[in-house]
Amino acid sequence: MEKAIQDYYPEDVSYCYGCGSLNDHGLHIKSYWDGEVSTARFVPQPYHIAIPGYVYGGLIASLIDCHCVGTAAAALYQEEGRDQGSEPAIRCLTASLHVDYLKPTPLGVELEIRAKVKEVNGRRVTVTASVYAGDLESARGEVVAVQIPDRYFERLSGAKPD
Amino acid sequence: MEKAIQDYYPEDVSYCYGCGSLNDHGLHIKSYWDGEVSTARFVPQPYHIAIPGYVYGGLIASLIDCHCVGTAAAALYQEEGRDQGSEPAIRCLTASLHVDYLKPTPLGVELEIRAKVKEVNGRRVTVTASVYAGDLESARGEVVAVQIPDRYFERLSGAKPD
Repeated sequence: MEKAIQDYYPEDVSYCYGCGSLNDHGLHIKSYWDGEVSTARFVPQPYHIAIPGYVYGGLIASLIDCHCVGTAAAALYQEEGRDQGSEPAIRCLTASLHVDYLKPTPLGVELEIRAKVKEVNGRRVTVTASVYAGDLESARGEVVAVQIPDRYFERLSGAKPD
Repeated sequence: MEKAIQDYYPEDVSYCYGCGSLNDHGLHIKSYWDGEVSTARFVPQPYHIAIPGYVYGGLIASLIDCHCVGTAAAALYQEEGRDQGSEPAIRCLTASLHVDYLKPTPLGVELEIRAKVKEVNGRRVTVTASVYAGDLESARGEVVAVQIPDRYFERLSGAKPD
């Protein structure tokens, strides 16, 4: 089975509420990268609503955030001509997040989030994304992600949630 | 006890995952408006993390979103010289959300989100907010909120989550 970008994250950084495979309470967002576009699919829970029948905007922001940050990491591996999962690990954090809510996002359908890299500038990657409910593009976002410096990674080594 | 902005929302629009008092799974964000600044306080759960020890950015986006949208509604009542809770109800949705993550937000402290209205332009309200962990301003956001047209409110009347 194809591995998601997040499946390559080292254990120390796999506790993210949005996309960490080890966060028992989290959303478990999974992003798949084909070298140009990355795609995530997500079915919101019935309680993930803004108003009855429509998905909560904060959830949409979370989907865009984690999906774009994962995409940024995949793009940085690619820039360096390295396979994902090779050492040292590349992992990014969000510097800024922007979301335009184009239409209310209907609940009850699988959402697809598609992202593309707009710009790589050293450790800084700008990624754009769109959220689709079927054919409806309901939201559009842009994330500026920054690669976590190695010294942070060292501090995190072995860190687990309390 | 002082009522939060969200405590004035009609029942039909009180199911929001971020701030709806009737959403059993939600965050129950509560915003208090003094006529100029609105304030919300929130303690993230131990699992609301990006990396161990630091709060998840999607949660911060959600706090800014609901707090600013609530503040926008309070501002529109004030513009009309009306008390919150007076009929017809004023309720806003998010048109756009922007968050700059200035510093990692530490887990384990109560966060304070402070918002101010930047501009009211008809049904469109721009609100800015900052997130503080103690004295540390860790994130800054801007939300454009739009008042829900009455015809939507009519459609929502009596709507409940499935």
